[in-house]
Amino acid sequence: MAQKPSIPKGTRDFGPMEMAKRNYIFNTVRKVFELYGFRQIETPAMENLSTLMGKYGEEGDKLLFKILNSGDFLHGMTPDEVANTSTLKLAAKFCEKGLRYDLTVPFARYVVQHREELQLPFKRYQIQPVWRADRPQKGRYREFYQCDVDVVGSDSLLNEVDLMQITDTIFTNFGIRVQIKINNRKILSGIAEAIGEAEKIVDITVAIDKLDKIGLDAVNEELRQDGISEEAIEKLQPIIKLEGTNAQKLDTIAEVLKDSEIGMKGVEEVRYVLSMLHALDADGTSGEGTSLNNAIQLDLTLARGLNYYTGAIFEVKAMDVQIGSITGGGRYDNLTGIFGMPGLSGVGISFGADRIYDVLNQLDLYPKEAVNGTQLLFINFGEKETSYCMPIAQAARKAGIRTEVFADSAKMKKQMSYANALNIPFVALAGENEINEGKVTLKNMTTGEQQLVTPEELISIINS
Amino acid sequence: MAQKPSIPKGTRDFGPMEMAKRNYIFNTVRKVFELYGFRQIETPAMENLSTLMGKYGEEGDKLLFKILNSGDFLHGMTPDEVANTSTLKLAAKFCEKGLRYDLTVPFARYVVQHREELQLPFKRYQIQPVWRADRPQKGRYREFYQCDVDVVGSDSLLNEVDLMQITDTIFTNFGIRVQIKINNRKILSGIAEAIGEAEKIVDITVAIDKLDKIGLDAVNEELRQDGISEEAIEKLQPIIKLEGTNAQKLDTIAEVLKDSEIGMKGVEEVRYVLSMLHALDADGTSGEGTSLNNAIQLDLTLARGLNYYTGAIFEVKAMDVQIGSITGGGRYDNLTGIFGMPGLSGVGISFGADRIYDVLNQLDLYPKEAVNGTQLLFINFGEKETSYCMPIAQAARKAGIRTEVFADSAKMKKQMSYANALNIPFVALAGENEINEGKVTLKNMTTGEQQLVTPEELISIINS
Repeated sequence: MAQKPSIPKGTRDFGPMEMAKRNYIFNTVRKVFELYGFRQIETPAMENLSTLMGKYGEEGDKLLFKILNSGDFLHGMTPDEVANTSTLKLAAKFCEKGLRYDLTVPFARYVVQHREELQLPFKRYQIQPVWRADRPQKGRYREFYQCDVDVVGSDSLLNEVDLMQITDTIFTNFGIRVQIKINNRKILSGIAEAIGEAEKIVDITVAIDKLDKIGLDAVNEELRQDGISEEAIEKLQPIIKLEGTNAQKLDTIAEVLKDSEIGMKGVEEVRYVLSMLHALDADGTSGEGTSLNNAIQLDLTLARGLNYYTGAIFEVKAMDVQIGSITGGGRYDNLTGIFGMPGLSGVGISFGADRIYDVLNQLDLYPKEAVNGTQLLFINFGEKETSYCMPIAQAARKAGIRTEVFADSAKMKKQMSYANALNIPFVALAGENEINEGKVTLKNMTTGEQQLVTPEELISIINS
Repeated sequence: MAQKPSIPKGTRDFGPMEMAKRNYIFNTVRKVFELYGFRQIETPAMENLSTLMGKYGEEGDKLLFKILNSGDFLHGMTPDEVANTSTLKLAAKFCEKGLRYDLTVPFARYVVQHREELQLPFKRYQIQPVWRADRPQKGRYREFYQCDVDVVGSDSLLNEVDLMQITDTIFTNFGIRVQIKINNRKILSGIAEAIGEAEKIVDITVAIDKLDKIGLDAVNEELRQDGISEEAIEKLQPIIKLEGTNAQKLDTIAEVLKDSEIGMKGVEEVRYVLSMLHALDADGTSGEGTSLNNAIQLDLTLARGLNYYTGAIFEVKAMDVQIGSITGGGRYDNLTGIFGMPGLSGVGISFGADRIYDVLNQLDLYPKEAVNGTQLLFINFGEKETSYCMPIAQAARKAGIRTEVFADSAKMKKQMSYANALNIPFVALAGENEINEGKVTLKNMTTGEQQLVTPEELISIINS
């Protein structure tokens, strides 16, 4: 036999069981997105490279998969020109198109391109693969799905409230206990401003983030190394040591930021979102005084996406599995500005399907009905028996039962191991006796129990 | 404003309404596939070019989208080497990967690569986009979805019976009246053999196919032009003039083919499939004496895929829309042979999502509930009113109602036109009076009717 064929590194095949699990994930998020009025769009796998280049930084440009122009991609370049042009520039000459790197830039492109048809606010979700020429490693793929939910054209904080509820509902439906962390870019800006180090937001946040691991003294030392003044570090102490409920934290920060306009705006925004979630908690039964099933925690060290988020920042971590962030997002005030349409504020969240898949697997949380395929298999004893079984199989399908008639009159053992391998819960057998009586023998593959039943009984047993 | 961004020619964005319709199509076929025990797989968008090249003919190789290798794709080629290498060979040097061109070759690759994990027969369906660098034109895209359903590892004709039932059920569920045509490659081979022109199957089929358009004399003239002998043309006459029911046609062909072993095998195969479909028609109510809702017709001019089909050939045409074939398939005896694993017979059908989409659009057959998004919109009159509405909205969602609270306290007119643009059937309003009474005003956007209701009444009205 020839060498086994293979697939490009960093890509994956998904077999039937993996697909069933993935579909369960996508259907669960999709259903919740739609409950909140988000509608699906899809964009092409290929975008013009002019749409993609320069949007993900220099490193990102290198990680774009580029598609060779059809036909004479050399465009009549002479060998000398080829020799004297850098690889990156040649790539740009040879390729006009590239594969989608994320769902955000295509979404921004979509909004600008279709702005005349769109009703604002535009609430969309998108579940599609993206491609990155990253070095493949455990848990990092070159093709992976993103599930993004965004609203553009509204700066109302009710959108943040919706997104928190969506996140909470989705993980509740999955049965995954999570911690939802929120922060606000304006608070971070305010802190940097209030301590007189406006340029050093990132350094400050990175250092504070290490408190649990390295302790207060080491954090302060790192801040000194970063060139933060003693006076600023002194002012930072209440924030580094920040503890307590969200309300207590907000009071402390508000005190530190009382002279920073942007900082106080951030405090107000977080307060409003939390208070709305609190107001929704009519019966007061849920955690942290909000309507969410999962705890929502203000975390000033949360600093993802500082390059583009301008308001709220979100992140979700699973409580019972060590896996890092499984969902994240935030508000960006200028998504479509890169395509010449400024002033559209948006906020969104991206759910990491691959990581959610890993968490559900580790905690074994897939509902049985979500991953079950065929429910009933008719054993094939030959042509005459099969002719008898086919109409019964058809009646079972009309009753909504996923049914197969084994196509080949193979050995009983082979047919039964097919049923076992596919986890088919019921097997029906009909030989001469059954045919004479107008019945079938129904075997419950879980209990091993067998019974002689009419076609009608068979359907009602399986459907019950 | 900068120039509007665009997408590569031959590709498409799908907006919310288009996606709702496409999801309806995919969900409908998926559900029927699963009723018959088919399970979904997905393969990567990128395959190794070695997997794809040479599988679609020379023309196909040119239509593959190739992905430029990351980094130094020149591999240190000298300018001379570049100058002395053909564009096609350069492309092969610069690119190791290409985009999926269809779902069949990746499926064959999947079966061979995973043969040790697979339980045969392997019944899989696959719904994914494919890419072809074809010249874009009306109805032909460079990115389009295929929906393939195949079984490999079984040469039983029961699979053909299942596929006919699946096809019939799917179009019945869509409400599209179709004509299902079947043929068998073995009958075509038998005919060519029986008239002593075994090499000229394709010419003969093409000529016969024109009978309706050009008449018998012209068909015979074309056969002469193709170099078919007078004696052979004479023998062909009963087949060219073939009319009547499937049974009558089969009798006529059997007479012509009685000395062709392969031809008679083909006749038997068609007879068996039709007789099984007949036997399933317990109540005798359906057309052409089969269990199908749609007519199934033996058509000897059906000759798609003669390069790879070895047995049954299928094609489906819509009765009420001029659009060509919307579904097609057949049996291939050596799918995995190209990857060094001979002897696995398979049979499958591919549903053309784009054409089905066009037919459903033209006949306006989308069920309302399949394309409806948000069911209930709360108008936003300000912060106080919204705080009152949010818990009611949340209760509606818990009752399964897709609900939005308009995020911005915009002008009433803007909010109502949002509801209209999105076809939202119910709008809820709560001002001071409603709040004082603990009620909302519910407006039915179809009838214009308004009523003052409690939150519980609102839910039961919308859910009824």
